[in-house]
Amino acid sequence: MSALIIPVILCGGAGTRLWPLSRAARPKQLLALAGGESMLRATARRVADPALFAAPWLVGSGLEAAAREVPEAALLIEEPAPRNTAPAIALAALAADPGALLIVLPSDHLVRDAAAFRAAVARAAPAAAEGWIVTFGMAAERGETGYGYIARGGEVAPGVHEAARFVEKPDAARAAAMAADGRHDWNAGIFLFRADAMLDALARHAPGVLAAARAAHDAARAHGAWLHPAAAPFAAGPAISIDHAVMEKAERVAVVPAAIGWSDLGSFAALHAEAAQDAAGNALAGDAIAIDASGCLIRSEGPLVAAIGVSDLVVIATRDAVLIVPRDQSQRVKEAVAKLAAEGRGDLL
Amino acid sequence: MSALIIPVILCGGAGTRLWPLSRAARPKQLLALAGGESMLRATARRVADPALFAAPWLVGSGLEAAAREVPEAALLIEEPAPRNTAPAIALAALAADPGALLIVLPSDHLVRDAAAFRAAVARAAPAAAEGWIVTFGMAAERGETGYGYIARGGEVAPGVHEAARFVEKPDAARAAAMAADGRHDWNAGIFLFRADAMLDALARHAPGVLAAARAAHDAARAHGAWLHPAAAPFAAGPAISIDHAVMEKAERVAVVPAAIGWSDLGSFAALHAEAAQDAAGNALAGDAIAIDASGCLIRSEGPLVAAIGVSDLVVIATRDAVLIVPRDQSQRVKEAVAKLAAEGRGDLL
Repeated sequence: MSALIIPVILCGGAGTRLWPLSRAARPKQLLALAGGESMLRATARRVADPALFAAPWLVGSGLEAAAREVPEAALLIEEPAPRNTAPAIALAALAADPGALLIVLPSDHLVRDAAAFRAAVARAAPAAAEGWIVTFGMAAERGETGYGYIARGGEVAPGVHEAARFVEKPDAARAAAMAADGRHDWNAGIFLFRADAMLDALARHAPGVLAAARAAHDAARAHGAWLHPAAAPFAAGPAISIDHAVMEKAERVAVVPAAIGWSDLGSFAALHAEAAQDAAGNALAGDAIAIDASGCLIRSEGPLVAAIGVSDLVVIATRDAVLIVPRDQSQRVKEAVAKLAAEGRGDLL
Repeated sequence: MSALIIPVILCGGAGTRLWPLSRAARPKQLLALAGGESMLRATARRVADPALFAAPWLVGSGLEAAAREVPEAALLIEEPAPRNTAPAIALAALAADPGALLIVLPSDHLVRDAAAFRAAVARAAPAAAEGWIVTFGMAAERGETGYGYIARGGEVAPGVHEAARFVEKPDAARAAAMAADGRHDWNAGIFLFRADAMLDALARHAPGVLAAARAAHDAARAHGAWLHPAAAPFAAGPAISIDHAVMEKAERVAVVPAAIGWSDLGSFAALHAEAAQDAAGNALAGDAIAIDASGCLIRSEGPLVAAIGVSDLVVIATRDAVLIVPRDQSQRVKEAVAKLAAEGRGDLL
């Protein structure tokens, strides 16, 4: 590699799936869910390799808190409105030199093996330099219905496969079949590409996205490292994910299978699975005691939590809210969030 | 009745069985566990019948908060040290005229039918005036092992039975047998007696208790309505319950069966049983939401509690502590209290 890869860290998304830990004003990427640092800080540290990566860019809205977590950020692109990932990535591609390599990274995922991650990126870089849009495929360990799947095609370079097909959020039977056949990977939302390749793909497959992003970019205000794209044209554009807008349609899309210890920590069940557990399978964090409990995730940022005689329960306590839900129903937190929203309890969301 | 009965409300006892609601500095009798007023205030209101009762006396330690709840108290006897109920009752008997009728009342029990309670007291008063120590027997509805049982003997007056035997905290088989045979009542810790009858019984069956209380009383300091018995002799005396010291041994002990809607609210399971419940059997108090939950007691004095998909669970939240325990194990709260004590977390107790 000659030129350094620019990490583009996506900081959008409030993430209510981890309420009451995550809040509108304290999104998931700012939480220290695994270890002592925020997910965002860990993401930035993962790309702090000056042999491979340039200083990161951040894209999102209300980036002040994110900027404090990533003081080394070279560019901070304020999303004028939430429009999902395609417009955000378009803004980054427009801000880069046409031949620059960008790697798009979610800011709130866990990657246990940073060295393996960097090795996968290095493996993918030549293909990206040739114009491939490269995704990174996580071994599909189970028939998860909430993820996107990528069917591996033929190898175009060592460890780099053509992406034969994208399947977004399949039903349970199809997910199980794909997880079992050994030819599918989970789409982790990590993308490596040359800026002009992404802009070309957007022009072809999502011209409305590109037009809105370009209009916003052309009328942007810059202030130091901060770039404020114009709000009106950006907000007028479509809201669509990069998967739907580009990945499922573009020609030269590749997948690099990567065993990097990935989890999106997208539920309390996932958080429990990734956390250190005691002999009874309890994962405790903060001021918590468990007596004759097993399989529980207990986490407090405020009051002491004392759990006695309970199994497979999630208990999350903050200063102003406490969630109790069976671990295997932890995605139902959204029902509580919806109820609170309906009751006008925005102070708790 | 000619002379009014003096209610002697016992305000001792921290009551850790309802932790984290009850605390050392906020004992159970100061909590509003059933309705909007404290248990102590409800107790005082129950005897606010000038045809039957004189102004109440309070006995306990650190009575300032109790005094605020019962501003009509005529005498406040500060226990210099916790010595269980017999010494406290001895202090009250010593402070009364020898012929006065005293009724000893726990300050933290629920009595739903105050009229039935007063009727039972009126029924018992003639026997007490004759020198009987009268207890009030609550119908033993189930084989509760944590209570004392009284075997009803022959009737000595209408609705007044000789107490044939006291059985303190029987094992489960014996408790079940007593609950089933229709001849046993629960001892609710409510006692009606002439002061001199109690002093005579103490002199005979617990002379050490009486000697210590008398020494403390004789050296007491009085200040307005407050009586401060001398600490040293009181603390040097034995710690023993009135049941063990007197009731199980004295000759002329009677029991008045009384259906007064009584509960000692001695556990969260009892609190759940006595609380208003929704159609799914949930009893919610404070800022709490239950989604697809059943049979739960959820009570918050601080953070919002959101419980989803759980059954028969107790969740108690305060600003600094949250308890989660299955309802049928709610007495295990003492294990959490013991653990916190062992860890030096007195701030939470």
